[in-house]
Amino acid sequence: MKVISLLGATGSIGTQTLDIIREHPTEFKVAAFSVGKNIDLARKLIVEFQPEFVSVQTKSDCNTLKAEFPTTKFTYGEDGLVEIAVYEKTDILVNAVLGSVGLNSTLQAIECGKIIAIANKETLVTAGHLVMEAAKRNHVSLLPVDSEHSAIFQALQGEKEKNIERLILTASGGSFRERSRKELENVTVEEALNHPNWSMGAKITVDSATMMNKGLEVIEAHWLFNMPYKKIDVLLHKESIIHSMVEFHDSSIIAQLGSPDMRVPIQYALTYPDRLPRLAANRLDLASIGKLNFQEMDVERFRCLHFAYWAGEKGGTMPTVLNAANEAAVAAFLAGKIRFLQIEDLIEKALNTHQTMEHPSLATIQEVDKETRQYVHSLL
Amino acid sequence: MKVISLLGATGSIGTQTLDIIREHPTEFKVAAFSVGKNIDLARKLIVEFQPEFVSVQTKSDCNTLKAEFPTTKFTYGEDGLVEIAVYEKTDILVNAVLGSVGLNSTLQAIECGKIIAIANKETLVTAGHLVMEAAKRNHVSLLPVDSEHSAIFQALQGEKEKNIERLILTASGGSFRERSRKELENVTVEEALNHPNWSMGAKITVDSATMMNKGLEVIEAHWLFNMPYKKIDVLLHKESIIHSMVEFHDSSIIAQLGSPDMRVPIQYALTYPDRLPRLAANRLDLASIGKLNFQEMDVERFRCLHFAYWAGEKGGTMPTVLNAANEAAVAAFLAGKIRFLQIEDLIEKALNTHQTMEHPSLATIQEVDKETRQYVHSLL
Repeated sequence: MKVISLLGATGSIGTQTLDIIREHPTEFKVAAFSVGKNIDLARKLIVEFQPEFVSVQTKSDCNTLKAEFPTTKFTYGEDGLVEIAVYEKTDILVNAVLGSVGLNSTLQAIECGKIIAIANKETLVTAGHLVMEAAKRNHVSLLPVDSEHSAIFQALQGEKEKNIERLILTASGGSFRERSRKELENVTVEEALNHPNWSMGAKITVDSATMMNKGLEVIEAHWLFNMPYKKIDVLLHKESIIHSMVEFHDSSIIAQLGSPDMRVPIQYALTYPDRLPRLAANRLDLASIGKLNFQEMDVERFRCLHFAYWAGEKGGTMPTVLNAANEAAVAAFLAGKIRFLQIEDLIEKALNTHQTMEHPSLATIQEVDKETRQYVHSLL
Repeated sequence: MKVISLLGATGSIGTQTLDIIREHPTEFKVAAFSVGKNIDLARKLIVEFQPEFVSVQTKSDCNTLKAEFPTTKFTYGEDGLVEIAVYEKTDILVNAVLGSVGLNSTLQAIECGKIIAIANKETLVTAGHLVMEAAKRNHVSLLPVDSEHSAIFQALQGEKEKNIERLILTASGGSFRERSRKELENVTVEEALNHPNWSMGAKITVDSATMMNKGLEVIEAHWLFNMPYKKIDVLLHKESIIHSMVEFHDSSIIAQLGSPDMRVPIQYALTYPDRLPRLAANRLDLASIGKLNFQEMDVERFRCLHFAYWAGEKGGTMPTVLNAANEAAVAAFLAGKIRFLQIEDLIEKALNTHQTMEHPSLATIQEVDKETRQYVHSLL
């Protein structure tokens, strides 16, 4: 039985992680989880999964739940996330919180030798150098949960890093893949949230539409698989059936395929290096799909992808600026404060304003993150 | 340096194996090879590769070459194949001869502990039970050379057999994939030999057109990967880009892709478990290909595939009958003695006439093989 700490239990990845745990009650137990503001769902999850330790966002919610569940231990806030992440009884941390708030808990859990199933992009995007160094030093496995990185991770099983020619991340193209830049000028929030293949949270759905999601994934892949950026390519594949590929230097390509269902990569991270059956799975039927389409990526159409490669190559604090500016800009778009294409403009301004600092510490990253958000807010 | 014995050096797989050895002179050396009747090409290969030991088909050719190359050792005939296969200085046997003549040499090489790179279909189709038992007993690796089996073998690296849901062999559909059965009645030998994707020998190209090639591959896959027939599916994929796939029970599918080039799987068998660069490789560009097509297999349209599953399930000597009847019928078609669809009729008659013998010995297999050919000839 693997014992799990889950950060972000009520989010999209969190609830799907709980689906997997529910399907395999003899294999997995969630001993601790964190939730944000969705206390109603938290109550249901506490009743169903009987965790020993729960963290919520506010002290007030913490006190409310303490009164309701006297045998459960509660905590709250950013420190609460860390307490859940390092909870002594757990083997695996599934980090599925959104945003840079997930970073410190990942680093602390690595120091405690927990296996990390990583769905929190910011952990690797902003602090890949710290995370990978800590993981190496503590002999900790970092298991990807994103479908693309899981695909690459699966394709690399039994293979040697030296034989990799390139990684090929596939991209659906997001909600606006059929539209020109001109047609993007006046798109609405509602349109942006209508992703053709995947059901995900609002922020990541907008990131798919801007292609920033793929850009962040490129940076994650750089760290997770120790690959230079020139060996990471992005290919448009609108069906999201091939989740990503690895080309080896003998010209052989290994790909991982499946119906779009995040529970498959989540489960793989939990069962790795083994696999477990998924009885209720939506199995892939290529004959009924008929065709898979592929198209070259256009970095002029998708400027955010270009920004991500640029920030990744610059390194240091630049990916932190990329990520923080994007979070602030997407939040402003979702709040109706800016238009869709202004997301790109704000990120570009933030990147151009910043002077890279090499090998930043966690404190520097957090400071740059904060400053960048303030800078973007100042432009609104 | 890996030292190689190559059976069938002048054939399609043989010459491409020599391409790989030529590209990697510090990695591989061919110490011994066999040729058939193409003595002119044999002379060139002897000059270029300087083998220590060569086998030819006839005693007369053997004597001719002995006089021309006094420092090379020569042998001939079916015994000659075995001598090359078990040559003491070699590490790997690449068995690329056509037909059931390749069987005894494979078995003898396994007994001598050689690694076997297997391109000879008959070895596994007719004697899979003997070959796999001998390989297990001698701790010998059987490495597939066929692009489909190599794809599955690559997809299975780092995976566990217990987690396999099914193998999915892809099939191009061969020369006549766009034609109905009605339109197949009067097709010519020349039309049958015009394969859309792969450049191969005449017999295997006709086998692709009848789908018997895929049927033989299903039987090979059954033995190589220890899979029941109900877990082996065939999917029409006309581009031959996805070479085959493995579905695991978590619904994840791992596939191997590449431009159609037999040198990739041949090289993988020689370098396994490592890979070596292929500088001159025709790298896959999915964006320029644009679309991959998939279609359900139709066993009424392709009767030979149905025969193969049926013979495989029957087991015992039945796959030997399938293979021998097919070889005799295809030879008759290539010689202009029968029409294309009569290949199927002859195979069907041979299968219906035969009484299966369980667990046949090598001698029984060879006898059934001979009797089946005689039976087919008697029907011409």
